[in-house]
Amino acid sequence: MKSRYIAMVVGGSVAMSTGLAALASQVPALSQQDRTSIWKSAKELFRPLPKAAPNPANPANPAKIELGKALYFDTRLSKGNTVSCNSCHNIASYGVDNLPTSQGHKGAFGGRNSPTVMNAGLLEPQFWDGRAKDVEAQAQGPIMNPVEMGMPHKDLALARIGSIDEYRALFRQAFPKEANPLTYENIANAIGAFERTLITPSRFDAYLKGNVKALNDQEARGLRTFVSTGCVTCHSGATLGGNQFFKFGLVNGPYSKYTGKPNSDAGRYDLTKKEEDRDVFRTPTLRNVERTYPYFHDGSVTDLGDAIRIMAKTQLGKDLNGQDVADIRAFLSTLTGQIPKEALVLPVLPKSGKATPLPDNS
Amino acid sequence: MKSRYIAMVVGGSVAMSTGLAALASQVPALSQQDRTSIWKSAKELFRPLPKAAPNPANPANPAKIELGKALYFDTRLSKGNTVSCNSCHNIASYGVDNLPTSQGHKGAFGGRNSPTVMNAGLLEPQFWDGRAKDVEAQAQGPIMNPVEMGMPHKDLALARIGSIDEYRALFRQAFPKEANPLTYENIANAIGAFERTLITPSRFDAYLKGNVKALNDQEARGLRTFVSTGCVTCHSGATLGGNQFFKFGLVNGPYSKYTGKPNSDAGRYDLTKKEEDRDVFRTPTLRNVERTYPYFHDGSVTDLGDAIRIMAKTQLGKDLNGQDVADIRAFLSTLTGQIPKEALVLPVLPKSGKATPLPDNS
Repeated sequence: MKSRYIAMVVGGSVAMSTGLAALASQVPALSQQDRTSIWKSAKELFRPLPKAAPNPANPANPAKIELGKALYFDTRLSKGNTVSCNSCHNIASYGVDNLPTSQGHKGAFGGRNSPTVMNAGLLEPQFWDGRAKDVEAQAQGPIMNPVEMGMPHKDLALARIGSIDEYRALFRQAFPKEANPLTYENIANAIGAFERTLITPSRFDAYLKGNVKALNDQEARGLRTFVSTGCVTCHSGATLGGNQFFKFGLVNGPYSKYTGKPNSDAGRYDLTKKEEDRDVFRTPTLRNVERTYPYFHDGSVTDLGDAIRIMAKTQLGKDLNGQDVADIRAFLSTLTGQIPKEALVLPVLPKSGKATPLPDNS
Repeated sequence: MKSRYIAMVVGGSVAMSTGLAALASQVPALSQQDRTSIWKSAKELFRPLPKAAPNPANPANPAKIELGKALYFDTRLSKGNTVSCNSCHNIASYGVDNLPTSQGHKGAFGGRNSPTVMNAGLLEPQFWDGRAKDVEAQAQGPIMNPVEMGMPHKDLALARIGSIDEYRALFRQAFPKEANPLTYENIANAIGAFERTLITPSRFDAYLKGNVKALNDQEARGLRTFVSTGCVTCHSGATLGGNQFFKFGLVNGPYSKYTGKPNSDAGRYDLTKKEEDRDVFRTPTLRNVERTYPYFHDGSVTDLGDAIRIMAKTQLGKDLNGQDVADIRAFLSTLTGQIPKEALVLPVLPKSGKATPLPDNS
């Protein structure tokens, strides 16, 4: 179900693509001065990704990261043994499932698009409505959510994990100073410690660190347009967004008029019941954005070009032309980074014990 | 829902475990002569796993294996983009999902337990009823099965995969001599080529190759009991089963009397409609059996000790004592092998194209 707006912009983009080569050639190449000036501006507005995203309240150690990774891939943290963190935040596809909303316990679909876990350790707060302060607090949510992993209570999660010998040993190693390391909070702490390793440096980081040639002319133009259009207001820093709240439909709304999907979600308003929070969401990080389709809290838009146009219209009141969209898109593709090699190595999951509660699909 | 038989054997096993140490000490240690004789007998009945499971009709090359692995982990081969081969045959848990039966399209559960993909390349035929001759033929089945991946027709699978640039390039590399490499059969051929790399050598292979000390006394006794009881009749060779058909309940039946789960599955009879095929199933491989619970075609039994007792009773008419079960179980644990390191490295999945058909959860 597409709105007239989408039909128009998509129509426009099809017309564009046939004339794109011609148009691109009409855009003059960047001068050395342009390139330097764009780079200097970028250095002010963005930062390279750090190597990791440490949390002093949850200090990492190798056993904790190993434990967290195993738990991340383990469906036994769901009531029916059918859903793991990785089901919706798939490491193989940049920490998302590329679905509008995700499938959870008993095949039900959730209400919001699964945000990427890549670089999420750098973001505060978590969730589209910001209801958790960090990845450790976030990880406690889905396990007990009835339409996600569906655990009826913490005790079942603890019984599942605590009945597995290998996990008990890993908890002792991961939390060596704790008398009773096996707690629900520590399940989430271990998962958080693993997630904090998921940093994805890209060509844009090489660029910010001084390699001005890491971006080609179109990408640099896209960066300039990204900044001059005002996208950078909400998408700056190392993660290009993810730490602030804004109304979706700030200048032109309601957003559903532009996305073409009915609005059944009032964002932070549903949490705070304050009118000023209606349709307010956390801005997403744009790191790996070309891989984390479909877009927006409801996954209503699949094409990145459409998402760029809609953002410019709803948030900034601007109608971008096809060349601008193509350039911004080219810039955003430089944010696609390397998934850490260690994270791509699957854990061999420990075997259940005699006392491990069986899958429950009720 | 457990039968009286299960209640009885489980009760027996609980009683056993308290006295197990005492019992074990009553079993005399094996003499050097015993050990040599068990090893010689094993050399006659079993074979070490080969390094790979090549198929001359589907010759492997690195691009084909890489393509097959990506497809294996890609949910876009399912109608709703929610199920991949790996969902039910999880590489992280020895090629199974450890569920009685598996969840597929729209959250539906299938009728039979998902057999392990580990070492499956060595098995002919495939499926519990043997309806496909090899892994290549097998891989064509679940994609189109309404309660598995749910693709309504081959064209949708081809449109999904064929609209992804990176896949098109990989198909050309994987099938260099074919003018039109992108076919439904080649999707399955690539997946099959990857699956043929999933060979899991274990301590038992070291034993068969001459290291008699690779098995301890209890494991060697278990091996002797496994052979003398008659288990070896159906579970021999390199894979310890997986290439023959037998009636489940051969000596004592119907099998549901022993497993405690009602029989709603007549095995090969449902395929052939021949009375002699009623309750006939392909024997499973016992490689990694301690990891591939729950057991039997309906996943009705979770504990390996229970499965050993039930098999001895239904197939061989024998009542094993607790020591025999413990010994056989110890032997079977030596079949838990190494998942190949390369298989544990997740592929980074290619991004969808503009023309890629969207997830369809209808």
